[in-house]
Amino acid sequence: MCATRIETDTMGEISVPDDRYWGAQTERSLKNFEIGTEHLPTPLIRALGLQKKAATLSNQKLGRLDNRLADAILMAADAVITGDLLDHFPLVIWQTGSGTQSNMNANEVIANRANEILGAPLGSRNPVHPNDHVNMSQSSNDSFPTAMSIAAAEQVTHHLLPVLAHLHQALQQKSEAFADIIKIGRTHAQDAVPITLGQEFSGYARQVELGMARLKDTLPRVMELAQGGTAVGTGLNAAPGFADMFVSTLRELTDLPFTSAENKFEAIAAHDALVELSGVLNVIATSAMKIANDIRFLASGPRSGLGELILPANEPGSSIMPGKINPTQCEAVTQVCAQVMGNHVTVTIAGSNGHFELNAFKPVIIFNVLQSIRLLGDALRSFTDNCVVGIEANKGRIDDLMAQSLMLVTALNPHIGYDNAARIAKKAYADNSSLKEAALALDLLTEDQFNNWVRPEDMVGK
Amino acid sequence: MCATRIETDTMGEISVPDDRYWGAQTERSLKNFEIGTEHLPTPLIRALGLQKKAATLSNQKLGRLDNRLADAILMAADAVITGDLLDHFPLVIWQTGSGTQSNMNANEVIANRANEILGAPLGSRNPVHPNDHVNMSQSSNDSFPTAMSIAAAEQVTHHLLPVLAHLHQALQQKSEAFADIIKIGRTHAQDAVPITLGQEFSGYARQVELGMARLKDTLPRVMELAQGGTAVGTGLNAAPGFADMFVSTLRELTDLPFTSAENKFEAIAAHDALVELSGVLNVIATSAMKIANDIRFLASGPRSGLGELILPANEPGSSIMPGKINPTQCEAVTQVCAQVMGNHVTVTIAGSNGHFELNAFKPVIIFNVLQSIRLLGDALRSFTDNCVVGIEANKGRIDDLMAQSLMLVTALNPHIGYDNAARIAKKAYADNSSLKEAALALDLLTEDQFNNWVRPEDMVGK
Amino acid sequence: MCATRIETDTMGEISVPDDRYWGAQTERSLKNFEIGTEHLPTPLIRALGLQKKAATLSNQKLGRLDNRLADAILMAADAVITGDLLDHFPLVIWQTGSGTQSNMNANEVIANRANEILGAPLGSRNPVHPNDHVNMSQSSNDSFPTAMSIAAAEQVTHHLLPVLAHLHQALQQKSEAFADIIKIGRTHAQDAVPITLGQEFSGYARQVELGMARLKDTLPRVMELAQGGTAVGTGLNAAPGFADMFVSTLRELTDLPFTSAENKFEAIAAHDALVELSGVLNVIATSAMKIANDIRFLASGPRSGLGELILPANEPGSSIMPGKINPTQCEAVTQVCAQVMGNHVTVTIAGSNGHFELNAFKPVIIFNVLQSIRLLGDALRSFTDNCVVGIEANKGRIDDLMAQSLMLVTALNPHIGYDNAARIAKKAYADNSSLKEAALALDLLTEDQFNNWVRPEDMVGK
Amino acid sequence: MCATRIETDTMGEISVPDDRYWGAQTERSLKNFEIGTEHLPTPLIRALGLQKKAATLSNQKLGRLDNRLADAILMAADAVITGDLLDHFPLVIWQTGSGTQSNMNANEVIANRANEILGAPLGSRNPVHPNDHVNMSQSSNDSFPTAMSIAAAEQVTHHLLPVLAHLHQALQQKSEAFADIIKIGRTHAQDAVPITLGQEFSGYARQVELGMARLKDTLPRVMELAQGGTAVGTGLNAAPGFADMFVSTLRELTDLPFTSAENKFEAIAAHDALVELSGVLNVIATSAMKIANDIRFLASGPRSGLGELILPANEPGSSIMPGKINPTQCEAVTQVCAQVMGNHVTVTIAGSNGHFELNAFKPVIIFNVLQSIRLLGDALRSFTDNCVVGIEANKGRIDDLMAQSLMLVTALNPHIGYDNAARIAKKAYADNSSLKEAALALDLLTEDQFNNWVRPEDMVGK
Repeated sequence: MCATRIETDTMGEISVPDDRYWGAQTERSLKNFEIGTEHLPTPLIRALGLQKKAATLSNQKLGRLDNRLADAILMAADAVITGDLLDHFPLVIWQTGSGTQSNMNANEVIANRANEILGAPLGSRNPVHPNDHVNMSQSSNDSFPTAMSIAAAEQVTHHLLPVLAHLHQALQQKSEAFADIIKIGRTHAQDAVPITLGQEFSGYARQVELGMARLKDTLPRVMELAQGGTAVGTGLNAAPGFADMFVSTLRELTDLPFTSAENKFEAIAAHDALVELSGVLNVIATSAMKIANDIRFLASGPRSGLGELILPANEPGSSIMPGKINPTQCEAVTQVCAQVMGNHVTVTIAGSNGHFELNAFKPVIIFNVLQSIRLLGDALRSFTDNCVVGIEANKGRIDDLMAQSLMLVTALNPHIGYDNAARIAKKAYADNSSLKEAALALDLLTEDQFNNWVRPEDMVGK
Repeated sequence: MCATRIETDTMGEISVPDDRYWGAQTERSLKNFEIGTEHLPTPLIRALGLQKKAATLSNQKLGRLDNRLADAILMAADAVITGDLLDHFPLVIWQTGSGTQSNMNANEVIANRANEILGAPLGSRNPVHPNDHVNMSQSSNDSFPTAMSIAAAEQVTHHLLPVLAHLHQALQQKSEAFADIIKIGRTHAQDAVPITLGQEFSGYARQVELGMARLKDTLPRVMELAQGGTAVGTGLNAAPGFADMFVSTLRELTDLPFTSAENKFEAIAAHDALVELSGVLNVIATSAMKIANDIRFLASGPRSGLGELILPANEPGSSIMPGKINPTQCEAVTQVCAQVMGNHVTVTIAGSNGHFELNAFKPVIIFNVLQSIRLLGDALRSFTDNCVVGIEANKGRIDDLMAQSLMLVTALNPHIGYDNAARIAKKAYADNSSLKEAALALDLLTEDQFNNWVRPEDMVGK
Repeated sequence: MCATRIETDTMGEISVPDDRYWGAQTERSLKNFEIGTEHLPTPLIRALGLQKKAATLSNQKLGRLDNRLADAILMAADAVITGDLLDHFPLVIWQTGSGTQSNMNANEVIANRANEILGAPLGSRNPVHPNDHVNMSQSSNDSFPTAMSIAAAEQVTHHLLPVLAHLHQALQQKSEAFADIIKIGRTHAQDAVPITLGQEFSGYARQVELGMARLKDTLPRVMELAQGGTAVGTGLNAAPGFADMFVSTLRELTDLPFTSAENKFEAIAAHDALVELSGVLNVIATSAMKIANDIRFLASGPRSGLGELILPANEPGSSIMPGKINPTQCEAVTQVCAQVMGNHVTVTIAGSNGHFELNAFKPVIIFNVLQSIRLLGDALRSFTDNCVVGIEANKGRIDDLMAQSLMLVTALNPHIGYDNAARIAKKAYADNSSLKEAALALDLLTEDQFNNWVRPEDMVGK
Repeated sequence: MCATRIETDTMGEISVPDDRYWGAQTERSLKNFEIGTEHLPTPLIRALGLQKKAATLSNQKLGRLDNRLADAILMAADAVITGDLLDHFPLVIWQTGSGTQSNMNANEVIANRANEILGAPLGSRNPVHPNDHVNMSQSSNDSFPTAMSIAAAEQVTHHLLPVLAHLHQALQQKSEAFADIIKIGRTHAQDAVPITLGQEFSGYARQVELGMARLKDTLPRVMELAQGGTAVGTGLNAAPGFADMFVSTLRELTDLPFTSAENKFEAIAAHDALVELSGVLNVIATSAMKIANDIRFLASGPRSGLGELILPANEPGSSIMPGKINPTQCEAVTQVCAQVMGNHVTVTIAGSNGHFELNAFKPVIIFNVLQSIRLLGDALRSFTDNCVVGIEANKGRIDDLMAQSLMLVTALNPHIGYDNAARIAKKAYADNSSLKEAALALDLLTEDQFNNWVRPEDMVGK
């Protein structure tokens, strides 16, 4: 049994563990929402700290908050930002849909800590009051979505984009290293005309590069902040100039180009920008699924698969089959992709069900967006470092497959027409012979012509 | 310019093409909902005909409708059932969410046709009135969901289940035909211990068999009918005994075991049973995606793929690569599966957004459910007939791959332990040697022991 | 029994209806894929016509195709573009995943029609050959995705964007017309502080405006064309300079800023740009769902709902409840939104399952993308014209609700603090009294203060 | 820096923290998969313990494992089952797709703990070897899916079903308590004919009841176990009789009716049963979304909403609007529903992407299924206890709305016909009069007739 103290809110008194800074509303949420184990993600708690800090600095600059209170609040907010107070944010995602309880959690923790700094007892709500001072000029309805925007923008910028650049570089390097390896191409998963292994990897690299472009196009809308709209977008009780002051302060604190939402009603009542961001994460998952699938199939074997790539052997693959090595990094990536695609549906459903002045699915939206960013970033970093950079071409196998391909016949189309070329391919397949043998047997061209026209190295473009 | 006549409803007069039986409300819907090209599916129009027929017979038996009117209505309803009046059902899915306009379309077409039979002019609403007689004891709110249930139940029973049985039989036959072909198994898409090709196909057959069981478990809930609840589930204005009379009549007409929904409020306000059915279709799509993917990869080649299966060559595969054959039936199936999975999300979203006494996403729900049933049924029938039944094993290739497998080492675990077995596999891989060579080189067992212990035919179970 | 002629391809002869221009491969697809009723959408057939026209002009300019053949091909392609030959495109979506059969359908129809123009019999494949001439410098693998890009870009540009601009203008006009109507705001679907009806509509307008911006950001990637990559991206058999010549020709034909894909491997093997576009359509659906839901709830009644808006009465609402009017345009829109969200999942799954050099889910991807564009465009135009422009404010009802609101108490926070303000609200609720009565009873401020501080017109921002 | 010891596997040596029981393969996974924060759920770790216990007992009974080793293994497995060793299961979901690393984690922890019990040092792999003894007769490929089945079945049986029964009872009780409260029904969110509040709640209760039936229909397929199939379904290296012995042992340990999968190939290569279960969870989410939405709208207000229900006030609702109470339990539920619907898409995608003998998305599938079960169970329990049981009817408000309804006119249809009834409703609406006034003004019936025919209490069924 840990020691408790009494905290109060407009509903009355409630006991709170004495070694925690949170107050009555946080405690009520803990008791009323015993649901699951999914707590607010760390980047969102940090964002709440940044939001409170920028708000307090703004109130201070606008002359609404005296320096003594402001300084204590700022010191407490800094501890939230750095993560020193994570143990004081116990709430789960499955709470009120506005995130009010987590906004109040931040207000209460900061107020109590500030009061402590100022020598007042925890729970006193004085001299620093969670609503009147920490939440000054704000409502949960604009503060929480602002924190959502901050967390998403920071994580995209500082986590996912750098990982994508890292992966892009690794794929680009493989593309260059494999530039001269001519191999069988495959369409419909069936043999097709030649391609270089470098070209194949250049396609993967391009997918990743476009993913970065997509994220960057989306960020400006993600960085439109609701702050200053307060409860319903009208800005009731916010100090004049608060929205602009907040944004310029936050830009300084984060070094990210946030803007004040042109229309605060939209920014509170909907989360279209996060649905859009989730859609881009979904595209990146689509790309990653394709890349990881290709690599695991190209590396299948060691003896009964396609066998064109050799992946790093990172761990034993089987509890029963000794010596087995599996494409486990690809499997982690594709599992993450499946999660991100499902998360996107969650975000879409949540985003579409807002009513009137407030979308009340805020926690579940940001939870899924942040999980998708985190997982894509982590998994693709692991994939790059533990798989991509170590991929080797199985040159002997690639050459063997190339030599026996029937689709090289395509190079004859411009010379003898599609229909005649088809006759050759079909005969070679039926006779289990080489293309040249079939071509000569059909008397459609001379051996010299065949040798001049069917040259894989001339079939892979510039 | 076609000739028109005047039709009326409670909003007044409106011109309608003279060669069509529909009335004012249908015409208003046509004008107010110029959206897309997706018309009511034929099985749903048939179901509306069955619903009107069963309702009319019930009203007649309950003494509410005189025989002269009833007989004319029944004759008209029969023409709807047989599909003779399809041209008189012009409305799209994207209309009122209760399906009222399509229910009224049925009421109007039947009333006009019945009046015509009785010698009265179209548009007269007399002696047969679309609301007072054709819709007697009914509301759109119970009639349309009843038609939804009828259409879904009929299509599952008469289309999808027979196709699944057909596919199951074809897979089962292949399983038996391939019972003695021992091949390399693959886990993680990598070489694993042996399996027979027949065992592989038995897994596919079992997936299909379980799919049938899933459908059958779901049907009783799908066949709970809303009819008799009228507008909100209370049954206002329905004749006493109408719900039961309707169900017993419909059972006779369709030979399907429909029941009267235990709770009519649920049956009108929600469509959980169709969300459930859609979920089962989603499982079947999941199974079909797996099967079709496996088959196209196992048949990949002809020279640079896995090459264990040979699929029927149904058509030229490429506009540029002569002689190319592709697994196109697999591609049609997997595309259908993607559609069914997306349709399921549509149905889920639509099913979850009902409000109060009525779910107002009825047309989009039944449109997607019927499309999924139709596509799965058609595609799997095409897949069975144009691909599965013609699949041949590429015995030579299968044997070659089997012979060189490293994972046969697994059979040594019980004799020399997992760690020693792993040493053998690793050495064989590194030396590009056979397992036996590696085993003997490591001096872990004798040649006789190897020959006795490593026998693929002993590794595939009973 | 209609007359037939013999057509041939590399597999042999097949009978084709004599009054149709299609050839052997189209006919084989018809027979092998009897699946569903979903034909290629009209905009995609038009796009195939544009693609063949631009390719032929390019081959002509590059000196590969003589003018006599080229002119006949162009004349035939023009007839495809205008839609005059729609009856000659009978294939369904559920075919080969590369769209080869529909590309060949276009090649065959154009070749036959061109031969007819040149006086040669249908089925002769001479002087114009479907593969060697109409498909010159092309493969299905670059032609079909190019047609997908053209169709999507044209439909977004010429259908959806204009509709969104139209809806935006209508919402903007309502926002201005309702600028001075102060009403109760609602958060969590519960009473909140005041807002103007104009502000509420400005939020909707902003959602639509951002939707347009999202589409425009995405279009450049959608307009990157695969053409020139031929079978696997290497450009085998394409005339030198073909890709660039094609793009500049197509830009002239369409007046749209298409570009040649920087990486053709990516453009054939993946359809990330269409997954991205589908994601933006998903955001627009999310926005539309929110707007349509709000409007139907705000218009709920006529006597037992929120009753703040009056919607146009377009048709009778019920087959059993006389005089009932329903928000049917909202229902059509929300059903379309559910469809678009599901289609997006289909596109995502299809986009993520490409293998090696080709994504083989092309038809299902473009089918869903075009359906989503069409449905959103049509439904939102219908919604705008049949609902939004006719929306009226129910001023009396709005004023009544405003007058009795308890949340006006929020304006007192800066004067008496959050905790005291809460005491007033709670007392008023408990006593069923007005805020002022409760405030005075609690002796927390004077009547003059109350009158000065609690003024809804001061609570809605600038 | 904590102390370490050396552990080995077939790849060599690796350092492991000395206070942890895990071995080399677990440690490699930790290092190779630094992805996200989502660890194996507790019920799955418990299930691995049960699986190892049942396997060991079976091996013992079949005479494969001597009692000394078996007893030590069983003691260790029991500690896994009770949760005493949770700190020794550090792996995340995003690992190899077979769950091999978590199966090896269990094998290693149990082997080390068993060796410790037997007086041997950690890391000795002797006398108890993780593969040869703890994993005897097993592969990860049958053990991990068996643990998945156990965890899902236990959680459905012991968590979700009891919660649904609890919610069902609460809704049923409300239905009975509200049986005599006649209120306005609403279709299309608009006024409709009367219904009792009890009937409305009976619909909710029925949705929950059917949800339980759906779960129960699905469980037998979920409880088909893969165990005995070992690596690919053939049962290689499993002791004869192992599969049956395992199942009978597990039934005793869990008191749940598990069966041995009829076809082990299907049970390893696919997870259709869990896709099906996820589909049922998706239906339950659909139901819960409807119920929670209805309740929050019916309780909207306190003064400007529908106001028919009064919900318990559990906490302050707003950081800026004093005295505000929000339907927060509904919001937690609906957020959970959005999550479950998205999880279902993840499970579907993962379930459909298995290849050959193994579905390699096992961890992400069971993670999502268990999260959905947990969240639905927790959220609906919270909803029941903190909301449903405390719901009160706002009788005065309900009566007021009932009295002024126009849709009572529907009761006149059988007497004066739909068209005449519509005239009355329209006139009353236009004149803002009562129905009776309009009816008499139109001279369509007498006052006595009106009074006899339009009686809400006669309009709500038996």
